[in-house]
Amino acid sequence: MLVNMNSGANEEEILEVETWIKNLGYSVYRSIGETNTILGAIGSSNEEFKKFLEALSFVEKVTLDSPPFLLVSREFKKEKTVFKVGDVEIGGGKVILIAGPCAVEGRESYLQAAEAVKAGGADILRGGAYKPRTSPYAFQGLEEEGLKIMAEARDITGLPIVTEVMDQHNVEIVARYADIVQVGARNMQNYKLLTELGQLNKPVLVKRGMSATIEEWLMAAEYLLSQGNKRVILCERGIRTFETTYTRNTLDISAVPIIKELSHLPIFVDPSHGTGRWKLIAPMSLAAVAAGADGLMVEVHNTPKEALCDGSQSLIPEKYSQMVGSLKGVAETVGRTL
Amino acid sequence: MLVNMNSGANEEEILEVETWIKNLGYSVYRSIGETNTILGAIGSSNEEFKKFLEALSFVEKVTLDSPPFLLVSREFKKEKTVFKVGDVEIGGGKVILIAGPCAVEGRESYLQAAEAVKAGGADILRGGAYKPRTSPYAFQGLEEEGLKIMAEARDITGLPIVTEVMDQHNVEIVARYADIVQVGARNMQNYKLLTELGQLNKPVLVKRGMSATIEEWLMAAEYLLSQGNKRVILCERGIRTFETTYTRNTLDISAVPIIKELSHLPIFVDPSHGTGRWKLIAPMSLAAVAAGADGLMVEVHNTPKEALCDGSQSLIPEKYSQMVGSLKGVAETVGRTL
Amino acid sequence: MLVNMNSGANEEEILEVETWIKNLGYSVYRSIGETNTILGAIGSSNEEFKKFLEALSFVEKVTLDSPPFLLVSREFKKEKTVFKVGDVEIGGGKVILIAGPCAVEGRESYLQAAEAVKAGGADILRGGAYKPRTSPYAFQGLEEEGLKIMAEARDITGLPIVTEVMDQHNVEIVARYADIVQVGARNMQNYKLLTELGQLNKPVLVKRGMSATIEEWLMAAEYLLSQGNKRVILCERGIRTFETTYTRNTLDISAVPIIKELSHLPIFVDPSHGTGRWKLIAPMSLAAVAAGADGLMVEVHNTPKEALCDGSQSLIPEKYSQMVGSLKGVAETVGRTL
Amino acid sequence: MLVNMNSGANEEEILEVETWIKNLGYSVYRSIGETNTILGAIGSSNEEFKKFLEALSFVEKVTLDSPPFLLVSREFKKEKTVFKVGDVEIGGGKVILIAGPCAVEGRESYLQAAEAVKAGGADILRGGAYKPRTSPYAFQGLEEEGLKIMAEARDITGLPIVTEVMDQHNVEIVARYADIVQVGARNMQNYKLLTELGQLNKPVLVKRGMSATIEEWLMAAEYLLSQGNKRVILCERGIRTFETTYTRNTLDISAVPIIKELSHLPIFVDPSHGTGRWKLIAPMSLAAVAAGADGLMVEVHNTPKEALCDGSQSLIPEKYSQMVGSLKGVAETVGRTL
Repeated sequence: MLVNMNSGANEEEILEVETWIKNLGYSVYRSIGETNTILGAIGSSNEEFKKFLEALSFVEKVTLDSPPFLLVSREFKKEKTVFKVGDVEIGGGKVILIAGPCAVEGRESYLQAAEAVKAGGADILRGGAYKPRTSPYAFQGLEEEGLKIMAEARDITGLPIVTEVMDQHNVEIVARYADIVQVGARNMQNYKLLTELGQLNKPVLVKRGMSATIEEWLMAAEYLLSQGNKRVILCERGIRTFETTYTRNTLDISAVPIIKELSHLPIFVDPSHGTGRWKLIAPMSLAAVAAGADGLMVEVHNTPKEALCDGSQSLIPEKYSQMVGSLKGVAETVGRTL
Repeated sequence: MLVNMNSGANEEEILEVETWIKNLGYSVYRSIGETNTILGAIGSSNEEFKKFLEALSFVEKVTLDSPPFLLVSREFKKEKTVFKVGDVEIGGGKVILIAGPCAVEGRESYLQAAEAVKAGGADILRGGAYKPRTSPYAFQGLEEEGLKIMAEARDITGLPIVTEVMDQHNVEIVARYADIVQVGARNMQNYKLLTELGQLNKPVLVKRGMSATIEEWLMAAEYLLSQGNKRVILCERGIRTFETTYTRNTLDISAVPIIKELSHLPIFVDPSHGTGRWKLIAPMSLAAVAAGADGLMVEVHNTPKEALCDGSQSLIPEKYSQMVGSLKGVAETVGRTL
Repeated sequence: MLVNMNSGANEEEILEVETWIKNLGYSVYRSIGETNTILGAIGSSNEEFKKFLEALSFVEKVTLDSPPFLLVSREFKKEKTVFKVGDVEIGGGKVILIAGPCAVEGRESYLQAAEAVKAGGADILRGGAYKPRTSPYAFQGLEEEGLKIMAEARDITGLPIVTEVMDQHNVEIVARYADIVQVGARNMQNYKLLTELGQLNKPVLVKRGMSATIEEWLMAAEYLLSQGNKRVILCERGIRTFETTYTRNTLDISAVPIIKELSHLPIFVDPSHGTGRWKLIAPMSLAAVAAGADGLMVEVHNTPKEALCDGSQSLIPEKYSQMVGSLKGVAETVGRTL
Repeated sequence: MLVNMNSGANEEEILEVETWIKNLGYSVYRSIGETNTILGAIGSSNEEFKKFLEALSFVEKVTLDSPPFLLVSREFKKEKTVFKVGDVEIGGGKVILIAGPCAVEGRESYLQAAEAVKAGGADILRGGAYKPRTSPYAFQGLEEEGLKIMAEARDITGLPIVTEVMDQHNVEIVARYADIVQVGARNMQNYKLLTELGQLNKPVLVKRGMSATIEEWLMAAEYLLSQGNKRVILCERGIRTFETTYTRNTLDISAVPIIKELSHLPIFVDPSHGTGRWKLIAPMSLAAVAAGADGLMVEVHNTPKEALCDGSQSLIPEKYSQMVGSLKGVAETVGRTL
């Protein structure tokens, strides 16, 4: 249930409605918009109560039917969510570029890559210290050692860092180093992890699960917001379809305008995991920005053939810089900067 | 098997190689490129024959392993396929806009829509006279009457027309009126229809089947080229995935760069069928052009709510014109015109 | 709209209701059941008309909301559809076995296979004379020559034959030879072909399209019934999913009980195309019969490795006979014979 | 790499080969079969080393190419994995029935359900104390209180209990109560959780992820075995496809024979989650057993309409007992007991 208060409603009046709703046994959430306040409550609701509330002079309208997500929805909060990570504004006019290798493989190579992507126009550094691998025998990441290397790269480049947390036990340690904590596709419905991250004082980037519906993905974000963490980024990374020869996943660009319509949260796109092939990164990045993406997450590796992980979907720094050049024009055409 | 002749090879030398291949029992196809000629043959091939051919002074190299498609491939024909329909050049520098209502519903409404999309910047008119409908009880199209109305719209606007043929019996009649004949998604593997259209002296637009792999789609085009029809357009229109709440299909924008890498044929995108929701048409059109599409196919209807077919995925003319305006910038950024 | 007449309603009363419905502009269909008659009409319907009809003493109840399919539905016709092809009863207590090679490759080999599957317990012979092939360069079938060989096999074995029609031009010739005409998965939404087959005086077996929903599949059958052909068999043959390594398609066994709930038409299963691997044919045949299938369609080839088409999904006659042996027990357990 | 030792090879000879492999830097795993020992090693391998090993008199053969899974494979361990949970033998001749409500909702209702399914022929009790819910606002389970109720049901009925662990923090507490620990579909690629459960001295049931390939699913089990836990059950629970109207998921029965061919681990089927509709549970259970499943996991609830979770896919105890009756016949037909 959503209750739109009149634009002139005062604190006392808002509290009165909140109390009425709480008395019915529901939790109530408040969204203070530019023009008016909206109250949201989850739970079955009834026509009589709607009529009662709408009869109050300071209530504009009451909506009973709504999708299962509340706090992430545009209906609850009309203004786009914008927040800063270091000096980088997420969700604003500038399209944000996250770049770096899939995994942190060593100090020297990571610092080189970090400087290269900074020079090529990245805003945020990516890198994996804990890697979710299909095989128990594959390289699992450098763990805390990798986090330290990333922190060093941040000190050198001045760019914030984003890295994945796979593990409830490691939330604290990852959060100690990272500026943005990433939830991987395989953990998008790891609800206990989401609940912990919802209580964390750090922005969280939530990748779409590989066969997650739009609604399930928004519900994952709802877990975070319902725990109080409002700095959430959604990141499309390709869905699983029957086409497995020419792409690893099918990058769902339509998720960008759909999320922008349904939610106030910033929406990023990862064309590296989303396609699995480096040749597709540039055209799909252009497509994502044209469709309205708030940011991109791209894998860049100095020597992709030697990468311990996902080399085939990484750009070399030179190609990355070229791509950033062509992105500028598209960003400007759709009213954004880069 | 692909045989690249030296750039200086003369007709006699080319014929000699063709004869060798034919003597093995294969059909041989010739591709005359800007710099050199390539010969292609379908069939099992052997290392010894490769060595024998490569020993000839006028043969540059022989490739044995190749995908199942030959005539549509970039390996066989390096230069992009460009052809004219009336005054409209398909596959060239200009991004081509096909627009119009889903079905021809009546003379007056169609002529109005035709003039509106022309004013809004369309290059080619679309419209359905024969409609493939899930239900036998649904509106099936005006048939020849519809074709006549489309021809009248062409006379008035000067724009070529494209319309679907559903039926082997109707190939002749549709071809009599249409400038481009469309094969719908449901007929992409109607091989008898493809074979007939391959013998037709008209360009053919082939929609991707709703769960067709890239390879199957290219093989459908191969049917057309193997019968002699080289003027073929591929059109992505969304694939079927598990997301059915917020889109009708998932528009696979990555098909655009993949097709451009694998094939010399022009690649179009239909964001109307590809998403099923008019709000997504503009952002997905921008994305398609940014990713390199050679053209768009968009449904435009004067009064979508009254449409007999697919109103929810049609733009009103005003929104269409706005979209074309913003497409210009993106097209220019990626080195195209509109 | 469905109108259930009282069990005692006479012809005059039924005609009266039919007239009322026709006067509203709808086509009306009559289903004469064992206990009472049901009238069905496609079209928008209204509460007032429902009330008016229900006030008539000879009307039991009126249902307004119904799925888009009418004639194929259990709601319209409660009794299972049972019909004979030669001596073979389809849809009755006996589970029907269709067997034979994918394609008719030659007279001798086909007659051998036919005798082998008869000896192994087949009720109906299968074989392809016109083959839908992804590649224009692949073996396309023996065409009429193949049909003649099949007819000869019928004469020798006494078993009816089923074969695919791919082509509107060939409906007549295929129907001249075949006892059951098959619509392949790729033609399930070839509505013109369905319409022609709906006017044919032959049973039709409709394979499920490779990404067809249950509803779309039933609508394909509705095309046939709406044209007057009531002898229709539905055949599940695997759907397209992301699993492409260990199966060619995912055989949807759940389609069997779903179709039996929704429709009165017999439902068969093709585990050969449905899995693409011969090792899976026996366990999936057992599963299909356990789930209630009315019949199976299995590929059997004397020398699968030499098959021109789909050898990897064919059983040798010996394995086929073994499988039939184990099917008997399962059939009896679920109250069927074999 | 797999090294099959001769059947007469002694411990010293086996150790010698293990040492050679370890010296190359690989971990080596030993599988002691009924007739001979097989050594397995993960890692890139070379032809020369193969030749060297095969020259040893006590080595039968060396296989270099193998799928990414080793310990779970039939090639590594030919004999089926059979183990006991209490008195219940998993993976043996008897088809094992796991039954009970989706969630433990209260003491009284759970004990009633437990007694009902025992009376109806269940071998193991199921129930959720920690529930993975799409919505943060939905009932999340009774947690430890629920575990205690399940333990009480075990004391009363004598049946072992299986319940899901969602959370690394709760592994210890769940393991304290449960006889089998379940990994849900959403956690199938929660590799940290798998690694912890691999070190646990309890059997683990691993549900297939909702869009997991067969290979990914086996790799999840490989995580458990590589940590030392050999008592693993695989459970098919439906995959996500485009059909969303008549089923919640598409139950992939073909996974049963595929897993049995590739792996020695027992394979169960969950037709409740796999279809989402109670009417489909009985036919799909029959199909699963016919296809060779080692067990079933079925939701049973005394009053499905009042269930806090997944009532629509639960049988009432009476229907459950009926189903068990008809399962007996099918089980016997395929050489199993019930």
